[in-house]
Parts: sequence; structure tokens; C-alpha cells
Amino acid sequence: MNYPPSVKKLIDLFSKFPTVGPRTASRFVFYLLRLSKEEIEELINSISNLKKTVKICSFCFNPFEGEEEFCPICSNPSRDRTLLCIVEKETDLLSIEKTKKYRGLYFILGGTVSRLKKADIEKLRTKELEERVKNHPEIKEIIIAINPTVQGEATALYLERLLKPFHKKITLLGRGLPVGGELEYADEETLSSALEGRK
Amino acid sequence: MNYPPSVKKLIDLFSKFPTVGPRTASRFVFYLLRLSKEEIEELINSISNLKKTVKICSFCFNPFEGEEEFCPICSNPSRDRTLLCIVEKETDLLSIEKTKKYRGLYFILGGTVSRLKKADIEKLRTKELEERVKNHPEIKEIIIAINPTVQGEATALYLERLLKPFHKKITLLGRGLPVGGELEYADEETLSSALEGRK
Amino acid sequence: MNYPPSVKKLIDLFSKFPTVGPRTASRFVFYLLRLSKEEIEELINSISNLKKTVKICSFCFNPFEGEEEFCPICSNPSRDRTLLCIVEKETDLLSIEKTKKYRGLYFILGGTVSRLKKADIEKLRTKELEERVKNHPEIKEIIIAINPTVQGEATALYLERLLKPFHKKITLLGRGLPVGGELEYADEETLSSALEGRK
Amino acid sequence: MNYPPSVKKLIDLFSKFPTVGPRTASRFVFYLLRLSKEEIEELINSISNLKKTVKICSFCFNPFEGEEEFCPICSNPSRDRTLLCIVEKETDLLSIEKTKKYRGLYFILGGTVSRLKKADIEKLRTKELEERVKNHPEIKEIIIAINPTVQGEATALYLERLLKPFHKKITLLGRGLPVGGELEYADEETLSSALEGRK
Repeated sequence: MNYPPSVKKLIDLFSKFPTVGPRTASRFVFYLLRLSKEEIEELINSISNLKKTVKICSFCFNPFEGEEEFCPICSNPSRDRTLLCIVEKETDLLSIEKTKKYRGLYFILGGTVSRLKKADIEKLRTKELEERVKNHPEIKEIIIAINPTVQGEATALYLERLLKPFHKKITLLGRGLPVGGELEYADEETLSSALEGRK
Repeated sequence: MNYPPSVKKLIDLFSKFPTVGPRTASRFVFYLLRLSKEEIEELINSISNLKKTVKICSFCFNPFEGEEEFCPICSNPSRDRTLLCIVEKETDLLSIEKTKKYRGLYFILGGTVSRLKKADIEKLRTKELEERVKNHPEIKEIIIAINPTVQGEATALYLERLLKPFHKKITLLGRGLPVGGELEYADEETLSSALEGRK
Repeated sequence: MNYPPSVKKLIDLFSKFPTVGPRTASRFVFYLLRLSKEEIEELINSISNLKKTVKICSFCFNPFEGEEEFCPICSNPSRDRTLLCIVEKETDLLSIEKTKKYRGLYFILGGTVSRLKKADIEKLRTKELEERVKNHPEIKEIIIAINPTVQGEATALYLERLLKPFHKKITLLGRGLPVGGELEYADEETLSSALEGRK
Repeated sequence: MNYPPSVKKLIDLFSKFPTVGPRTASRFVFYLLRLSKEEIEELINSISNLKKTVKICSFCFNPFEGEEEFCPICSNPSRDRTLLCIVEKETDLLSIEKTKKYRGLYFILGGTVSRLKKADIEKLRTKELEERVKNHPEIKEIIIAINPTVQGEATALYLERLLKPFHKKITLLGRGLPVGGELEYADEETLSSALEGRK
């Protein structure tokens, strides 16, 4: 026995959602089949409203609701306009905001690349990034806050090269032992950074 | 910084999906925000089509596509109508079908209950189950194929009591060591079942 | 900086212990270095006593303490001498005893083999097993209670072939869903067995 | 059926080894029972030799082999005697040595404490630590390289207070994202440290 075509189609679409595989996607579809007509309409309306009411900030690409061109962070006059923090995705921006330790602006790159192939890099917002840095001479420091994973490091390296001509201070997030970490299980690079960054 | 209301609303709706928490739900919303207008429409149409094209079988509650009243399994004349297998959910039915070892009919209960409270049990299709068994004297054996978890066992016990008055043979899935299992880590009940079920 | 030779030697010996890798082995050695002279002596005496006071049963290879030739299970007149249960190792015997569902005798094979090579099989007690079965015509059923892992199954297959000429009833532990298992995550073989073994 | 007393005794002793529970301890005993007389003697001799041939360094408590009073690190004239690094245990010292980024001396504290109770603290080498710092005015910086776990942090806090009267520079390992870490899963403290420690 196989899934009917309309179920299959929706499993395919849900399988493209981040972290979702075919098994979870099929559970989503069976969940929808059990919802009432009103609940389905509520979901459809919410998805359809999203694009209508949510705007993407013209500076940092952060989604927000409102008539303005810029998001609440970018339009906040008390933020430090000499700092630009490049993050991979929207949830990373929120993680940094939660620390309340950063008062500058952001730029959401839109992903990372494993290989520095042209086709891959074009999916990132590198042109928009270059433009922001070029048009905003008030920026003094650019913080590359990309995950220190293999793919993140390749992307950070690419960004460092890309932004070098603008002669700004370029920094990376500090490496070290995370809260709850143990020396015994730390790799040599993390431990070296923790030693060098002692204070 | 907080999420805009329309984002929050959709995070709430996605958080009700099975296996999805708020973090994953927010990643779903940011994923949708990056889709094109056409891709959003494709998703909305697929969700909206689901309820229109997919019917729920009048006997077993299995979803299928077609004009008929009964699903392909229930309307297949070669299936054994003396066997009825009760499963918790649609994916469990598919798991059993994949083994190709079962040729009878199914009944999708729609869930399990942790407490045998009236309010909880009313969410299950117990009335429909009783009706099926009553109206189908050709059924000789009822297989309760509910997960042997704590909640599943409570539900199985309830079903056994519920179906007792119909004087059918009632069976449960065999317990034992799963493929790849080890005696050393098996609980006593599983190991006892494996010993008793040796062959 | 490297470990001193006597530390290295002991790390090597502890690394051969089941489940122990070099990292854990080195923690064992540093633990010993912190013990008092009396505690070290207690450990050494206990290890040295083990071989002196613990005998291996002449029938089943189960370790026990005493002057007798046979272990308490084998010398218990109320055990059922028509049943012989082959297990891989001592802890598996204990797991089965804990269920209190088995009243026959045991035979500890001493391991499993991944390949049916002569050199590997010679490490198992297959000759002793053949001898036991040959010399004990009262045995009616032989239960192969080996883990249903890939390696265990290869060994079980080998034992079935080995014991065939003795014309005894040969059984395997029942397969099925373990307590707490879920249909959705069960492999097809386990689910097929659970269906066939329903009761 | 129960374990014989001499087996039980040894299971108890092995259960005190770091990371070992009763199940693993019993597997160790069954492993020993299968060893030859010669292999058991080799193990006993190695344990017994350990205390005889391995000395504990009179300065840092690092185990080493030799006639000298001090370990190879402490007696190496090229090590930087102005730096003292406090670690919890021997394997942590080795982890730091592997990075080849540290050229100072060490002090092995011998554990951490969860509560700052006198009875607990007396198990640590705090008196010896105070003595080292007092008698070695050449020490300029003390690096507390204790795991940033809850227990480790309590211990580090205690050490900071203990060493304050000596007016040395006291530092802690840098916090931050470890190699392979992700912003999304980092706690706020780690992310704050990573931001502040950017470079």
C-alpha cells in the first residue's frame, strides 16, 4: 500500500523543512488529516499572512512586522553603528541578542558554504554584505559570528578575504571551553584557545 | 527583541505538530520567510487540497484518495476478513503492511491513553471499534497491535476489557528480543517472553 | 611528556578488559596511584584469591565457590535435566536466572564468532558442548540463547548445524517487540516475528 | 543464584574504579576468571610494581618513574617557572601538554568539590598548594585550569579566595565556543564570553 498522490506531494514539501525527514513529514500530514476544517484554515491563513505582514529589513535581512524599511534593531538610535556582526541565520541573531552583551548592528548572511564554489557562494548575501560595508564608513569592526564548524570556518575564511579590501578591523568569536565542558574531552585547538584566551 | 505577532502565531501552530518544539517551529517559520511567493502558494495549495482529495476510510479510518467509501485495503477482496488488527496510528499500519506478513483488515484507534479517564478515552475511536466488531460477525481474531509502552499497555488492557463481551479471540503482538538486542540489557519481562516464546 | 613504562604496561593490561579503552585504562592507573598501600594489597589479594577460591563448573563452566565439581545450578536436583540452555557468557546466564522462568541447565559457550573460521571457532567451547550433548541422553531440548545480533546469529546458525546430528529439539529465543518498544521504529524482521508470535 | 563471596568482593573493589558500575565490574571479574594463571600474575605484578617504580613528584604530584625527587616537567630547566597551572587530575595535565602551548609548571589538585565543606576540601591538596605558592616567589601567574562544570566552578571560586592573599595574577581558562560548536545550542554565558573574547 502506498500513500495517495496528494499525501505524497505534501510529504515531499514538508521533507524540505529544516530538520525534517520523510518519516516526520508523513507524521505531519497525518496530523493535518486529523485537524478540523477550521484548524486547517487557521494554519493556511497564518502561512499566507506571514509574507504579507512580515517585512525583511533592508539593511540586515532580519524579518519584522511594520511599515518601516528597517527592523527595530537597525532603526534603534541607541545601537552602536560602528559594530557589524555577521551571523548565518535569524536564530543566531536572536541567540546573540539574548546575551544582552552586544549593542551593534547585524547582517544575516543566509547560510554557509562547504566549498568555495561560485554557485554555492552566490546563494549567500555576499554582494549585499560588500555593499553595506562600502556604503557605511562608520563601521569600524566587523565580527564574523559564524559557527566554528568545518563549514562555518570555510565560510569565515572566505568572508575575511572578501572584506579585507575595506580595511576594517575583522574579529572572530572567542574559542574556548563552553560552560560544562571538560578538559579531558576538549580537542587540542579548543584547549589551546582556552589557554591563550585565559583571563 | 521579540518575534513579530504573525511569526509568533505560526510558531505556536507549528509547535503543535508532532515532535516539533518551539525552537524547531521558529526554524520552520524562517524557512518559509525565505521561500518565494510561488513556493508558499504550492505549500498552501497542497495543504488545502489534502482535505479535499483525501478521504478517510469508513471502516478502518485509513486515509486514501478516491471516490469510494472504503480504502484499497478494506476493498481488496483477497484480504482476510476474519482478522482485525487494531493500531494506534496511520504510520503503524504502514509499518505492518511493509512486513507483508499480515493479510487481514485494520482499525486505526487514533491514539493511546495514559489514564483510563472518560475524557481521555472519548478521544479514541472506541465506539466505532465496538460497532465494527458488533456488525462484522466474520471477524474471528482481533490483534491488539499497540506499542508495548506504559501508555500503550494501559490502552491495550482497556481494549481487552471493552472487546471481551464479543467473544472473539483477542491476541497481542509477541514480545521478545528485537533484532540486534542483547540479553544483558533486556528487562526481565522481555527476556521471560523471549524464553516462553522460543521456537 | 609520556607515561613511565610501568604505567604504560598497566594501561595496556587494563585496555584488554571488556569495554575499556586507553583513556579509561589510564584513569584506572591514576586511580591506583592514589590508593594507599593497604588498598592496593586488598585489590591484589582479591585478584589472587579469585583463581584459588573460585572453581569453574565441570558441566556448564559457570564460576562458583566450593569444593564440589559442579555449580549450585548443575547440582540442584530440582532443575530440569531435559533442558539445556546455551548462553554466550556468565552475565547472560545471570540475566536468565533473574527471570525465574527457566528451570533447566546451562552451558556457557565462552563467546561468539563473526566469521566461521576454524581459528575463531576453536576459541568457543564447541567440543565441550558436543561432549555434553552426547553424554547426556536425558537432554531433550537445546535452547540457543545467543544475542540476536549479527555476530550472535552467525554463531547460532553454526551451533544449529553442529548439534543437528544429535536429533534433539533445538529452539531459539522468541523475537518480538521489547517492553517499551515502538512499532514505528521496529525493523521488519522484528515486527514480522511479533506478528507471527502473537498470542 | 548469587555471586560467590570472592567474586562479590572483587566486584565491589572494581566498582570503585572511575567510570565503572557494578555491571561492568562483574564483566571485569568474569574476564579475569578466563585468564591463564600467567596472565593473572602479570596483572598482579604490574599493579604491585606500580607503587614501587612510580614516584609522585614532590612539587606537582605528577607520577613519574625515576630516582629523582621531581618529575621531568618540574626538573626541565627550560620550563617557565613564573607560571603555575592548577589542574584537577593527571589526565588534564596530559591534555594541556599535548597542546604544546603551555611552557610553565603544574600543580595537580587531586579532585574538585561540590560543596565547600571542610571535610570535602581536606581531600584536595590545598595545603600543599598554599605552600608551593608561598615558597616560590618566582611564580607570577596562577592559571586555574579546572573544568567549567558546576563542581569545577565552585572549586575554582574557592581557589581564587584561597590564593588571593599571595597577590599573584590569577587567571581562568578562556570560555567560548569549542571547535564544532554552534551558536544556536550555546548557553548565554558561553556566548557572552565568546563575544567578549573575540579577536
